[in-house]
Amino acid sequence: MKLFGFFNRGNSAPVARERLQILLAHERRSTCNSDLLALLHREVLEAISKHVAIDAEQVAVKLHRRESVSMLEIDIELDPEAMPAQMGGRAA
Amino acid sequence: MKLFGFFNRGNSAPVARERLQILLAHERRSTCNSDLLALLHREVLEAISKHVAIDAEQVAVKLHRRESVSMLEIDIELDPEAMPAQMGGRAA
Repeated sequence: MKLFGFFNRGNSAPVARERLQILLAHERRSTCNSDLLALLHREVLEAISKHVAIDAEQVAVKLHRRESVSMLEIDIELDPEAMPAQMGGRAA
Repeated sequence: MKLFGFFNRGNSAPVARERLQILLAHERRSTCNSDLLALLHREVLEAISKHVAIDAEQVAVKLHRRESVSMLEIDIELDPEAMPAQMGGRAA
């Protein structure tokens, strides 16, 4: 599974948008289905939204589950203008 | 960059330990170096430690930075016994 193609795109390609991708993978010894990732999903988004404005419509979430491994993929497109000033945006 | 080899190991391999891997990638439009990931790093660990005990010695962090992309990799080995009961551990 090739993830995070960011690093493979040459540096010359102009970046038109601002994007944040989060990947959480949990390798479990027990196969009980209660999921640490489901708990973390909301809290990770809360942590991010303290620093940058997130439009719920621009958040894509995928959960992949195998016998002993769960993987949560969160892909957020950020509005460059809404980024804080110290990160190149215009937000306060 | 092949990350998270979890999914490629066959299901038959017994999982001896419990492990959590987090990957945060930020594709920035501006090249200003102030980093969203440095801000998120601490908060993601705080969110996790609300649910499972984390031994600071079992946490490996790597930050990769290119011109318009930063990537933070956090690899945590968890003590299966310290996982909450509903996740197969013995913690309260």
